[in-house]
Amino acid sequence: MPRYALKIEYDGGPFSGWQAQADQPSVQEAVENALSRLDPGFAEGARIAAAGRTDAGVHATGQVAHADLGREWDPFRLTEALNFHLKPAPVAILAAARVADDFHARFSATERRYSFRLIARRAPVTHEKGRVWQVTHHLDAEAMRQGAAHLIGKHDFTTFRSSICQAQSPVKTMDEIRIEEREIPHGQEILFHLRARSFLHNQVRSIVGTLERVGAGSWHPSKVGEALAACDRAACGPVCPPQGLYLTGVGYPIGIFGD
Amino acid sequence: MPRYALKIEYDGGPFSGWQAQADQPSVQEAVENALSRLDPGFAEGARIAAAGRTDAGVHATGQVAHADLGREWDPFRLTEALNFHLKPAPVAILAAARVADDFHARFSATERRYSFRLIARRAPVTHEKGRVWQVTHHLDAEAMRQGAAHLIGKHDFTTFRSSICQAQSPVKTMDEIRIEEREIPHGQEILFHLRARSFLHNQVRSIVGTLERVGAGSWHPSKVGEALAACDRAACGPVCPPQGLYLTGVGYPIGIFGD
Repeated sequence: MPRYALKIEYDGGPFSGWQAQADQPSVQEAVENALSRLDPGFAEGARIAAAGRTDAGVHATGQVAHADLGREWDPFRLTEALNFHLKPAPVAILAAARVADDFHARFSATERRYSFRLIARRAPVTHEKGRVWQVTHHLDAEAMRQGAAHLIGKHDFTTFRSSICQAQSPVKTMDEIRIEEREIPHGQEILFHLRARSFLHNQVRSIVGTLERVGAGSWHPSKVGEALAACDRAACGPVCPPQGLYLTGVGYPIGIFGD
Repeated sequence: MPRYALKIEYDGGPFSGWQAQADQPSVQEAVENALSRLDPGFAEGARIAAAGRTDAGVHATGQVAHADLGREWDPFRLTEALNFHLKPAPVAILAAARVADDFHARFSATERRYSFRLIARRAPVTHEKGRVWQVTHHLDAEAMRQGAAHLIGKHDFTTFRSSICQAQSPVKTMDEIRIEEREIPHGQEILFHLRARSFLHNQVRSIVGTLERVGAGSWHPSKVGEALAACDRAACGPVCPPQGLYLTGVGYPIGIFGD
């Protein structure tokens, strides 16, 4: 059966997360249902695998999944047909590509990129509700950058890992944490861009929640390094909510979508 | 009674527009209800006036309205109290200011600024649904700029005016139409920024809908000038939908919000 990779965008708001669960709407199930409607060779009960199993409320602009289909498809026609069958769910296929039989969206991935949107202003957000985390106090972006610097490189990230994380090892290599500050009317938008081969469960939200404490002035930047060194979940700052988090891209040894 | 100006942001999606109407949710009514809850001196049935009476589905990031209140308020406390009483409606007060008794949000305004967000890509929008107009074909931004150039200056805008427009004269002066193009993954975002002392009913949507035809290649840019010169509503391109339109700011002879 020919294997296809799909580049997927979604609004995580209405879903219990990427992963299919009984009696809960999931992004995985939405895509699988669309696949089984358009390709009878994609058997009912067949499963697709994704690079990042995003939690409830987490968004994606560049999730990647793979599926084994019943026949050969032109990638453009496959994209169009899937988008037709996905309506009206807030899930869109941005691109599709024929990949080798041993390609695996999760296990072949060599890089994941996440962004987190944080808005700091007094007035409640209106247009961006459900798509950002809002705080009402000013944040010091430079202090957050100093705090984030402690996390770059290969470390035991036990402090920044959910207690239910299933990864075998807490050791990960953080390649980049870039913090972008944009002025918005009556406030700030802070964008965190994180890049690593792979992440632990809740790692991004644990890091952003901790860096927010640094930006607010209640943690000295050096305390981030101490928290990391403690290798103790209790040393973590508060885990921030999911709705500001976006899986923005997945890297593979060979580019698959021609972009 | 002391008069206050309010700078207001809202998601137009759930509203029938700015203006209060019987049995229809309006932004005006949401703000008036919040005012009457916090200030008993703001009598039930009292009305507020806004610079731009936005249509159903149209958004604002910088609407301005004024209200006569029962007592003096510290502008920061007024903003906070209104935002508390506005919840959970997607309406937020960004700033408040004490203004002179002869200040009128609509009649004192000397400039209105609107932006329109247009996304051109094949895959349906997910996160931006209800906040942009989407087309699925590529647009030529440079051709749209050439078309827009015909509209700058003082003209009879009958062609670009709703048949139910109540303005006394169709003559308006368009100070600026700036067209910004941003690359987005697998598509384009086109931002139209329009600036004038005042606008006719549906003027922005008539102009953007017409320029989209130019960008798509079905209208030559010079046809925009011919349509304007015709002074005939039938010469207008299709009026585009409201959900990409934002009232972004209102200008007054004296800055009122200190920004």
